[in-house]
Amino acid sequence: MKSILFAADATPLQIAAVRRALTNAGAASVSMLNGARSVMLIGDPAGEIHLEEYRAMPGVEDVMQQEEKNVHVSGDRPPMDLTSGIEGMTMIAGPCGIESEEQVAVIFAHLAKEGLRFVRGGAYKPRTSPHDFQGARRAGLEMASEIARDYGLQLVSEAVDPRDIELMARYVSVLQIGTRSMQNFALLKEAGASGLPVLLKRGMSATVEEWIGAAEHALVAGAATVIFCERGIRTFESITRNTLDILGAAALKEKTQLPVIIDPSHAAGRRSLVIQGGLAGVAAGLDGLLVEVHHDPASARSDASQALTLDDFSRLMELSRAVRAALREAPVAVR
Amino acid sequence: MKSILFAADATPLQIAAVRRALTNAGAASVSMLNGARSVMLIGDPAGEIHLEEYRAMPGVEDVMQQEEKNVHVSGDRPPMDLTSGIEGMTMIAGPCGIESEEQVAVIFAHLAKEGLRFVRGGAYKPRTSPHDFQGARRAGLEMASEIARDYGLQLVSEAVDPRDIELMARYVSVLQIGTRSMQNFALLKEAGASGLPVLLKRGMSATVEEWIGAAEHALVAGAATVIFCERGIRTFESITRNTLDILGAAALKEKTQLPVIIDPSHAAGRRSLVIQGGLAGVAAGLDGLLVEVHHDPASARSDASQALTLDDFSRLMELSRAVRAALREAPVAVR
Amino acid sequence: MKSILFAADATPLQIAAVRRALTNAGAASVSMLNGARSVMLIGDPAGEIHLEEYRAMPGVEDVMQQEEKNVHVSGDRPPMDLTSGIEGMTMIAGPCGIESEEQVAVIFAHLAKEGLRFVRGGAYKPRTSPHDFQGARRAGLEMASEIARDYGLQLVSEAVDPRDIELMARYVSVLQIGTRSMQNFALLKEAGASGLPVLLKRGMSATVEEWIGAAEHALVAGAATVIFCERGIRTFESITRNTLDILGAAALKEKTQLPVIIDPSHAAGRRSLVIQGGLAGVAAGLDGLLVEVHHDPASARSDASQALTLDDFSRLMELSRAVRAALREAPVAVR
Amino acid sequence: MKSILFAADATPLQIAAVRRALTNAGAASVSMLNGARSVMLIGDPAGEIHLEEYRAMPGVEDVMQQEEKNVHVSGDRPPMDLTSGIEGMTMIAGPCGIESEEQVAVIFAHLAKEGLRFVRGGAYKPRTSPHDFQGARRAGLEMASEIARDYGLQLVSEAVDPRDIELMARYVSVLQIGTRSMQNFALLKEAGASGLPVLLKRGMSATVEEWIGAAEHALVAGAATVIFCERGIRTFESITRNTLDILGAAALKEKTQLPVIIDPSHAAGRRSLVIQGGLAGVAAGLDGLLVEVHHDPASARSDASQALTLDDFSRLMELSRAVRAALREAPVAVR
Repeated sequence: MKSILFAADATPLQIAAVRRALTNAGAASVSMLNGARSVMLIGDPAGEIHLEEYRAMPGVEDVMQQEEKNVHVSGDRPPMDLTSGIEGMTMIAGPCGIESEEQVAVIFAHLAKEGLRFVRGGAYKPRTSPHDFQGARRAGLEMASEIARDYGLQLVSEAVDPRDIELMARYVSVLQIGTRSMQNFALLKEAGASGLPVLLKRGMSATVEEWIGAAEHALVAGAATVIFCERGIRTFESITRNTLDILGAAALKEKTQLPVIIDPSHAAGRRSLVIQGGLAGVAAGLDGLLVEVHHDPASARSDASQALTLDDFSRLMELSRAVRAALREAPVAVR
Repeated sequence: MKSILFAADATPLQIAAVRRALTNAGAASVSMLNGARSVMLIGDPAGEIHLEEYRAMPGVEDVMQQEEKNVHVSGDRPPMDLTSGIEGMTMIAGPCGIESEEQVAVIFAHLAKEGLRFVRGGAYKPRTSPHDFQGARRAGLEMASEIARDYGLQLVSEAVDPRDIELMARYVSVLQIGTRSMQNFALLKEAGASGLPVLLKRGMSATVEEWIGAAEHALVAGAATVIFCERGIRTFESITRNTLDILGAAALKEKTQLPVIIDPSHAAGRRSLVIQGGLAGVAAGLDGLLVEVHHDPASARSDASQALTLDDFSRLMELSRAVRAALREAPVAVR
Repeated sequence: MKSILFAADATPLQIAAVRRALTNAGAASVSMLNGARSVMLIGDPAGEIHLEEYRAMPGVEDVMQQEEKNVHVSGDRPPMDLTSGIEGMTMIAGPCGIESEEQVAVIFAHLAKEGLRFVRGGAYKPRTSPHDFQGARRAGLEMASEIARDYGLQLVSEAVDPRDIELMARYVSVLQIGTRSMQNFALLKEAGASGLPVLLKRGMSATVEEWIGAAEHALVAGAATVIFCERGIRTFESITRNTLDILGAAALKEKTQLPVIIDPSHAAGRRSLVIQGGLAGVAAGLDGLLVEVHHDPASARSDASQALTLDDFSRLMELSRAVRAALREAPVAVR
Repeated sequence: MKSILFAADATPLQIAAVRRALTNAGAASVSMLNGARSVMLIGDPAGEIHLEEYRAMPGVEDVMQQEEKNVHVSGDRPPMDLTSGIEGMTMIAGPCGIESEEQVAVIFAHLAKEGLRFVRGGAYKPRTSPHDFQGARRAGLEMASEIARDYGLQLVSEAVDPRDIELMARYVSVLQIGTRSMQNFALLKEAGASGLPVLLKRGMSATVEEWIGAAEHALVAGAATVIFCERGIRTFESITRNTLDILGAAALKEKTQLPVIIDPSHAAGRRSLVIQGGLAGVAAGLDGLLVEVHHDPASARSDASQALTLDDFSRLMELSRAVRAALREAPVAVR
């Protein structure tokens, strides 16, 4: 990718002039702060932008064929260890919503026994009114994060409002951005600014390119890393809740070294298909799974029909390990 | 629609118990504050919920077959006068983004001459980094709203962050919620709480049902009204930027008395089709148009290819009036 | 478009060699007979094929930047008069299926009174087994075409099997190709070879480009003309039966001089929206409508819920005329 | 499923009367010949059809809650042995198109060495004009089937025209119906009447329910069996050629005992993702793969970019065996 680095004292007008020139030349651009200086990332589909022509413009300090490595999805940032449950993979599980101490404790205990490091549990959820969460929000997070700590687990939870991030960052280790928020740039910016890793679900009708753009927002703002999570896209087919785009996720892996995992629960929409979806993702070489698990799905307040039981989850872990091992031990690795 | 009104002193646990009972009976529900009391709206697709069975539960004050009239999309709230440009219609136009005093003044002057009451202009835009708008945001709104006032116009502008609403409400008459924010519930709530009318664009892959749900959030929070705006949905076809779903918008009108308008600019993605799309919407009996207009599209910073020129816009107004008149004068009215 | 004309005595091997060279150069090609000679149409998205380099290859007679005018969608063939019902428009109506003499006579009489020249009625229908049509097929066509003749009307009917075309050509004036058959190339070829005009419905998930390609097949085979008919595409939204892509149809008109009409009946899927969809199409400048009409919809064997009554249809005609006149009389014409 | 069996001497009028009654009661129905007698399959979404009420109607011989077992997708017909390449699986591979003896021989030899029983190769292809295939059609099939026989292989090839089936049946062991033909009922009927197994690709925008309906047509006409083949559906996402709907295929397996395989080649559209897609299908418990293989992809006339090399294919087979074995040996089987 091409980018332009501006001097620390470049003025908005100078930056705007560069952008105007790029636009006239047929390129798209997005600028962002990198420390005190602005960086402008250039989308150049036709490949016709000659960077050197911009070097002499007022305010420009440098032009780069490859943008600053540490701010972009496609860069090779030092990998963050996100191993959870299976060597080299990031398995994350937990209930859809945090409901009670008993629920959280029973589920987290089981997940800890399965070797997980990250567990999920929603405290702030889209689609429901503020009233519903007066009890569950902060109190839920506090409770769940304590139980997680007791089991040596780290909590992943979804943020829906930029004003909640500061509070959430006290309790969670990974901030989840949900499918409806993938292009909520105010939220992405705050989440990134927390410095935590961001688990970024794909928007239900987002292209892979848009998904990358959203991740870029969080990374630029300071996110430690981004974990991409495919959770099914919206299509004409309704036999599953969403259409799990495994090859889209695999195609994303060709463009980034950041981890790409899948959420078979929301794609399948029903228990019977979750394991198959999860194993398909493992076999396709993706980096992990995010699954909804409940000790008593029938009593779950939300997404009851798609939550795995604790036994189901153990089976999924066992089969995932077997598939992963089979691919590793095969004489030729998956490319 | 069915709803349950809780007593002012109903506890969260009592409310949760009612919800649990509804869920067990196969119904979906959403609760919200209506003044000091909670109201639970019940989705009952199978039509099997017998409200009287819930009346006796602790915390319940009343059960209603028809929810509180003034909070819901399908209710018959007293219509708000939103006439702009054409009698009985809401025509809204303006530049994609507020760029300069000259730009705003030239365009608004032309729109005033065409008889419009509402004009649009973006100051806070999704997809762009904070850096880009340091100048344009508040200053842009202030400037544009002053020019609008000079011409007797009212400003419509998009909000993207709940923390901006309070400020925006000083300058704008209608808060626009963009397609990427349709399910940003924190934003909808703040926008509604401002008491202003909310122009709610359809999410690019939102069903009409989800769109109604989003409007409900804004109305419950206090929005004066909601203007639905169809702007094209995402499909496999890319010959237009989005697929303008005129019949989907017409179908929505069968479910609500609130105004439903269309934005042919974002659907078409190019100037040559905007007028056709707009006229199609007028002929289909929709309530108005939202179009991008620029006095010099070639120099527009964003969406240049889809902005109508001032002359184009006058032509669209003239033809829209002609179509509207033709349908009115025809012996049998459109239903 | 680029094309290569082969000599009458060019051998298959020579033609294959040219194709191979084109493929290696990154182009797609399709060859077809034009009289005794082969013509190869070249898809050259990157614009890098230099035709002159192919002129010297064995078997090549000529290279053309613009393909033979009389075989292609984008050519300016002498327009065929397809006026029906409204001056300058092609209004076609009739029952979904031919059911009885009484049904056909009552409906056709009404349509004749409305000034239509073309009427529709299905005798061979997709989705049903051979058994169902033992009675309706040929006998139905014969009966309906006789009644049509009595009223000075011409019959439009759908073909589903290439082996039926010869028989159908005795009774119908326009061969309809349905949405499920849009890429049934064997059928398109036989339909084209009949020399009749072909009414080509858009495949329910066909891009406009694929639709043009299908028309090309019929035209190359000899079709008098092709009438494109947009009938709604398949999307995630199910509030209407299909999503009527009016702007897609308008975009097609930018690429062809052939008529483009719309079928609001199959898009809407229910009576209440058919008129709105039809008027939207008229206002968008499309060339006509294809609508399902029944004198007693409740008794219709198929598509009962979307058929207009005779009165509804008269209202649609009246309003369509009014909209058309309004756009004509407006000082500036729709482009 | 509910069905009605008619007497051998039932008249069309009697059958039509039953259908009318069903329609009035809100049911959809499709009738077909089963030997000399008609069977009417009833779609009864609301579950309100009481079969006994129809028993007494003239022409009705019997009413059945479960339709004739041997004609329907959901029945438990005696399984046909379709093992190819991997125990319990149906692995099918071969070039997109039959091009030359050398090509076919080299590829088939390799596939035979990998233990395959079924090989593919196209002789009649959609999208290309008759001219292109004058040489390849019958001659290609004859040649490829002879080479296949030399290696103990059976040929799978696509039919596009009902008039070709009789000829094709002399050379192929399995008739493939392509994605554009899934609802070409004339073709399905002829293919079924051949008595051969039919490999039925899913239409690119077909729901699983429509796919089942298409299979039913072939089975009713006499197909030995139907092999369902998921090959990617059309969505808004274009990073892969189509969106491989693995969970849709898995959901189909919950409704039928017939084999369901996947074609990762057409979904991926490029070599680098084919193996991942194939392994995902195997891990999801599907019954096999259909992949495009070429000994020299760069020279392939069609689909060059998505064909696996011979080595790639061996790797895919090895990894598929490993995944299959891993899932079998795991203590708990995939359900």
